[in-house]
Amino acid sequence: MDEVVVVGLGSMGMGAALSLLRKGFVVRGCDLSPAARDAFAAAGGTASGSPAEAAQGAGAAITMVVNAAQTRDVLFGAGGVADALAPGAVVISSATMSPTEARALAEEAEARGLLFLDAPVSGGSIKARAGEITVMASGSPDAFAAARPVLDAVAAKVYELGDEAGLGSAYKIVNQLLAGVHIAAAGEAMVLAARLGLDLPKVYEVITASAGNSWMFGNRVPHILEGDYSPRSAIDIWVKDLGIVADLSRELDLPLALTEAARTLYREASEAGMGRDDDASVARLIAGRAGVALPGKEG
Amino acid sequence: MDEVVVVGLGSMGMGAALSLLRKGFVVRGCDLSPAARDAFAAAGGTASGSPAEAAQGAGAAITMVVNAAQTRDVLFGAGGVADALAPGAVVISSATMSPTEARALAEEAEARGLLFLDAPVSGGSIKARAGEITVMASGSPDAFAAARPVLDAVAAKVYELGDEAGLGSAYKIVNQLLAGVHIAAAGEAMVLAARLGLDLPKVYEVITASAGNSWMFGNRVPHILEGDYSPRSAIDIWVKDLGIVADLSRELDLPLALTEAARTLYREASEAGMGRDDDASVARLIAGRAGVALPGKEG
Repeated sequence: MDEVVVVGLGSMGMGAALSLLRKGFVVRGCDLSPAARDAFAAAGGTASGSPAEAAQGAGAAITMVVNAAQTRDVLFGAGGVADALAPGAVVISSATMSPTEARALAEEAEARGLLFLDAPVSGGSIKARAGEITVMASGSPDAFAAARPVLDAVAAKVYELGDEAGLGSAYKIVNQLLAGVHIAAAGEAMVLAARLGLDLPKVYEVITASAGNSWMFGNRVPHILEGDYSPRSAIDIWVKDLGIVADLSRELDLPLALTEAARTLYREASEAGMGRDDDASVARLIAGRAGVALPGKEG
Repeated sequence: MDEVVVVGLGSMGMGAALSLLRKGFVVRGCDLSPAARDAFAAAGGTASGSPAEAAQGAGAAITMVVNAAQTRDVLFGAGGVADALAPGAVVISSATMSPTEARALAEEAEARGLLFLDAPVSGGSIKARAGEITVMASGSPDAFAAARPVLDAVAAKVYELGDEAGLGSAYKIVNQLLAGVHIAAAGEAMVLAARLGLDLPKVYEVITASAGNSWMFGNRVPHILEGDYSPRSAIDIWVKDLGIVADLSRELDLPLALTEAARTLYREASEAGMGRDDDASVARLIAGRAGVALPGKEG
């Protein structure tokens, strides 16, 4: 149980893997990128490009890949994690996905004799490095019990949201709807402020102390003020996550016009070539189309 | 200077008037509603239905009416405040309006020998009663100096945003854009959560501690949880304030698609008969159209 495989050494997965190492787990990382593997090896872990090789005999696997399709592939595809884990091991599934997809993965894991925790995360790369992410988790009591030592090592807060897979993903997607809309709203507000000739750092000061504030406004607007669109979280994350909301919206016959308007902005930003840039680039998109100057190297 | 007229004894104006009374000012209130005037008289103030009568010889006037048109009317219409104030008195204009309208009012006040502070407010009725509103103010140093004793009596925080009328209103409208979008986003998120069968108080607990949080989510979602849509702030406030943003958007040739989607939701809620209900009613609109049950007397 003290052997853990972390699949996906991106900013969240790397942070979780390093936190586990620090707490004394034997951690094997898995990533397609040699650079990510080298970075983890340099920090004292072992790494492999093969999920099955990394998972061999481990008692727990965390999957921190991009989406449900990748999660399915690394778990159940050829050379996947599922066949290599120790019998009765727990899979901690942390990619953002629809509740339906999380339930389907849980069924497949359980059919193979594995425990499954639907456990999407939030908090960003800095909290991941510190072992202080938030986990929105659901699953059987056995899955929680098996995952507990790993969760304690990577998370500051674990919400226990029910005993069925799908619930954790449902809470996460509600959070993503809000966060995605709020970043886009911050973009529109800051471009309007710039067009009105306001002192943008002062706008930040006033709004963060007022009823117009959001967690995302406080976190992302500094990127706009600094004109720094190097990716902390990318535009394409929101194309993906609000795409999941859009699929759910259709599936449930529940129109969500505001969220759809935000999704359109992210898609347009991605199509304009900013997909891998910081998500605050939605402000650049709006400003660029209207000829409004924002702070930055060009400005 | 210790004689002040407060025009508009709604929730914000009444709070400001009572705060001024408490601090020892001679306060004359003005409102078209006999009930509002009676309430203020019962609290120890004097009240009139006529702006000119209430303003007679006062050194300061605060206008806390609905919009720019009402502000213009109570100041400069027949029987208005402007001709009745003491020479050199200060007008503190606190309705939400466009920067252009605030500048026009300032010009007219100054042409009549009055000082003018562009001073929209936020904070809600509870903070208004406590003398703890936030003021986003701009105007000449003389206008600030003349208004200072009044501002100190009604506000916990006064942002000094520049020496020209229009700037205070510009900051306020940026705040309203965000606040209006965030309430609508909270509505969509909570209806999605209800449709997914989530535990709504738990959603509130998780989101308010997560990156999806906003000031408005924290403040308004309890109304949804309680099924209580008695108006703290009404749908029609947002039809009005996002209407100001829409006018600005056209005037400045700056498309704001997300804000426009939020405005559409408020207009639809108003057209569905919820205009005077609490602004959290945007959730009822979305839920009702999709046949989703929310907490409440009906549910």
